[in-house]
Amino acid sequence: MDSKARRPKKIRDLERTRAEILEAAFPLVLEHGFQGVSIDDIVAETRHTKGAFYHLFPTKLDLGYALVDEVIRPLIIDRWVRPLEDFENPLQGILSRMQELIGRESPEILKLGCPLNNLVQEMAPLDAGFKKKLRSALDLWVNETERHLARAKADGFLKQSVNTKEAAHFIVMAHEGFYGMIKGLGRPEAFAELFGSLKIYFQAISTTAL
Amino acid sequence: MDSKARRPKKIRDLERTRAEILEAAFPLVLEHGFQGVSIDDIVAETRHTKGAFYHLFPTKLDLGYALVDEVIRPLIIDRWVRPLEDFENPLQGILSRMQELIGRESPEILKLGCPLNNLVQEMAPLDAGFKKKLRSALDLWVNETERHLARAKADGFLKQSVNTKEAAHFIVMAHEGFYGMIKGLGRPEAFAELFGSLKIYFQAISTTAL
Repeated sequence: MDSKARRPKKIRDLERTRAEILEAAFPLVLEHGFQGVSIDDIVAETRHTKGAFYHLFPTKLDLGYALVDEVIRPLIIDRWVRPLEDFENPLQGILSRMQELIGRESPEILKLGCPLNNLVQEMAPLDAGFKKKLRSALDLWVNETERHLARAKADGFLKQSVNTKEAAHFIVMAHEGFYGMIKGLGRPEAFAELFGSLKIYFQAISTTAL
Repeated sequence: MDSKARRPKKIRDLERTRAEILEAAFPLVLEHGFQGVSIDDIVAETRHTKGAFYHLFPTKLDLGYALVDEVIRPLIIDRWVRPLEDFENPLQGILSRMQELIGRESPEILKLGCPLNNLVQEMAPLDAGFKKKLRSALDLWVNETERHLARAKADGFLKQSVNTKEAAHFIVMAHEGFYGMIKGLGRPEAFAELFGSLKIYFQAISTTAL
């Protein structure tokens, strides 16, 4: 086998190893916090060596940044953005996603918090690199939500007076802020009530009954 | 001097020492977090000895609990509850307090976060005693807000269809949740925008133009 043929396989292997390590790290960090998990904890959940870990992630921070960029950003798109394409009225879409992802989730899962918000609370104040990555992930969520609100406005579902940027920011920040409070206080049952009130806001910016 | 006469003075002295220690600890904890401040840091900001500290607060956790009960609870009442008495329409009162306490505050102060929310994020997940105290302080805020919303309803300012408990919970949790996100992300300028959207919610539950 010449080096030309070997190289793509090596890259594919490295990519798979990287994905497997991130996949192992994600639930551990969600449950114990970034600082509460060691590289040994993560490696023990994979079939790889510590050497392989350090080859791919020279420091634990590099792993943390990769969790934001390569796991959390795609999760935002998959869970909160792409499903909105299926809704003629994006306002109904956002409410439906909240109902599906939070309203129907078990208290055991909800009390772990939101992966993004957990890192905002734990790591953004401690590390500028984390703060930058987390801001960027939140901006992605806000901007994609705004894109769908602009569609809602163009199609007559959102009142013309509503500033789509402000509304998108409010919706994402309220959602994340609630997660932060609920996780901190250990009150997952409070979500339903909070979303009842958030729906009043949605109704206020909507031209139709939601 | 007999012991009867000495005792009240001693109690007064102890109370004053306690208040001085809490007053010294509060801004340090606000700036550096509870875990980021040592008993030595706090004692150094007072004219008291470490012995006096331990006499009043056998452990650092006792000091933390006292910060919640003896500093933060009164702050909630003084800043967010008692001023509402001066407003005929409590909805206008709440918006006015937000404008005053957050809208006009400097970014340098806002980025320190809210003393209550900071401890919810930092300490509630780590210590059951903190979680209980913090829940109780938040409940105080929600319950007192609800009392004023009930008054707003009785006086015709709040729509009859609004559940005052849910609304009070939403208002306090949104406010605290925003603080958590803004502190984490270091974006104090975002508050104005978020409150612009929160006002749409207030307008939606109000019978009058706010």
